[in-house]
Amino acid sequence: MSKSIFYHAGCSVCVSAEHDIINLVGKDKLELVNIGETRNRIAEAEQAGVKSVPALVTTNGNVLHINFGASMEDVKG
Amino acid sequence: MSKSIFYHAGCSVCVSAEHDIINLVGKDKLELVNIGETRNRIAEAEQAGVKSVPALVTTNGNVLHINFGASMEDVKG
Repeated sequence: MSKSIFYHAGCSVCVSAEHDIINLVGKDKLELVNIGETRNRIAEAEQAGVKSVPALVTTNGNVLHINFGASMEDVKG
Repeated sequence: MSKSIFYHAGCSVCVSAEHDIINLVGKDKLELVNIGETRNRIAEAEQAGVKSVPALVTTNGNVLHINFGASMEDVKG
């Protein structure tokens, strides 16, 4: 994959982190996925190793969990 | 400040996150501070709101705590 993927769930912590990450990394290098809305991508996020959102999955597959917005269980809830 | 500051303590989680952040943000836009070694910057990090390392303080003053390496208490230990 050529872009890092930022998974979030629309929570306030997520939105704040999203702005920071866009400023830091650049919007063209990011795919933004709201797994609260796009629920069919939850499984993909979990498979990538995402335990909570917001989280950034880098192009080499590493997962950076940023602050703490919501656990995947809460998102699925 | 014109650069984001990446605070870390040399732990394995920190080093891994450091590589990812350098790849994402670019080394020229980052100041890397090992507060395990440069202990006189611990107070500054705490004042910026850093609760654990690794953490990235953005140019607008937001703190992004990334994964979890060590609490500030552990670093001060």
